[in-house]
Amino acid sequence: MGIGDTGDTPRPGRPRDPRTDELILAAARELVAEQGYNRVSIDAVARRAGVTRPTVYRRWPSKAHLVHEAVYPAREMSFRPLPHEDFATGVSRFAEAALDSFRRPETAAAVPGLLAEYRDQPELKDLLVARMDPVRAIFRAFVADAIARGQARPDLDADLLFESLSGALMFGVLGSDLAAEPGFAASVARLLTHGAARP
Amino acid sequence: MGIGDTGDTPRPGRPRDPRTDELILAAARELVAEQGYNRVSIDAVARRAGVTRPTVYRRWPSKAHLVHEAVYPAREMSFRPLPHEDFATGVSRFAEAALDSFRRPETAAAVPGLLAEYRDQPELKDLLVARMDPVRAIFRAFVADAIARGQARPDLDADLLFESLSGALMFGVLGSDLAAEPGFAASVARLLTHGAARP
Repeated sequence: MGIGDTGDTPRPGRPRDPRTDELILAAARELVAEQGYNRVSIDAVARRAGVTRPTVYRRWPSKAHLVHEAVYPAREMSFRPLPHEDFATGVSRFAEAALDSFRRPETAAAVPGLLAEYRDQPELKDLLVARMDPVRAIFRAFVADAIARGQARPDLDADLLFESLSGALMFGVLGSDLAAEPGFAASVARLLTHGAARP
Repeated sequence: MGIGDTGDTPRPGRPRDPRTDELILAAARELVAEQGYNRVSIDAVARRAGVTRPTVYRRWPSKAHLVHEAVYPAREMSFRPLPHEDFATGVSRFAEAALDSFRRPETAAAVPGLLAEYRDQPELKDLLVARMDPVRAIFRAFVADAIARGQARPDLDADLLFESLSGALMFGVLGSDLAAEPGFAASVARLLTHGAARP
């Protein structure tokens, strides 16, 4: 442990200071947005946050873990269906929220780096993908309710809709220019709810 | 220019040897599949192909240009609607072909690296995204025909369908485990043609 790393040393009866977590997460967001995922190191994040390397590593075992939490913060996993909300309207609201998240400079910069890490470390992929399970559970309940009310197809696979929406929106930001067009999230949501085929 | 780099030197009346292109593209595919995008260098590709660095740089100005052509070869941009093919069947066939392409080890390894380069160099993104314009044009004609036959919605945006399908399939391979499930391409195609909402 290095000099200057005493403020948050775990001790009996003394909880870890959550402000230190926030400092580190904010530094990671800034650096990834500025420099891209590949060029950022734990060292640089520690320096920017004014803490030591061990202070970071005690909380996150790798850059991928840290950046994932920094760009997908648990407190923002907050999509909630509104009571009596129409299915298509709910999907559209979910798509707007997801697009806002994917468009943030730190998220757009982090995602390609994280996808590259997933390829090299499948167990990391499983772990980080599972961080989104609470949002998936809420979305599943939303779809089950829409099916019960006769607004969604009875055989609709909620996970398939969740991942297809996410993929279409993410790719619209990273791999094409479509996300720059006004109404992009609503257009994707309408395509996935109403379908391309003539009924 | 280095020793051993005489076989394909441009000279009046002597066209560049396309076999050298193929050697370099094959070497790039192998190395990216083995090592991931970030760890591959033009140097390593040249060594694997048995040519010099200038031989590679004469053909492709950067690793991104080379890898894009290696993993999205122009000759495979070959989706063709079949005469009298049902719209939903055509979309499903397109999705199967796209998924087969995204699943190839060299493509799955290259895409995150290319997306990271796009973020850093928007003009590279425009250039490489435009390499897929011939496929987009075929897909647009396919959609226009389906609209004319009353099988697709009259206001369907062909580019939105093309990119949403691609994004959902790509993300199913890279960012989730859905692509491992049998029938994934058909499920995504059905979702995007028939929609999640109850008609």
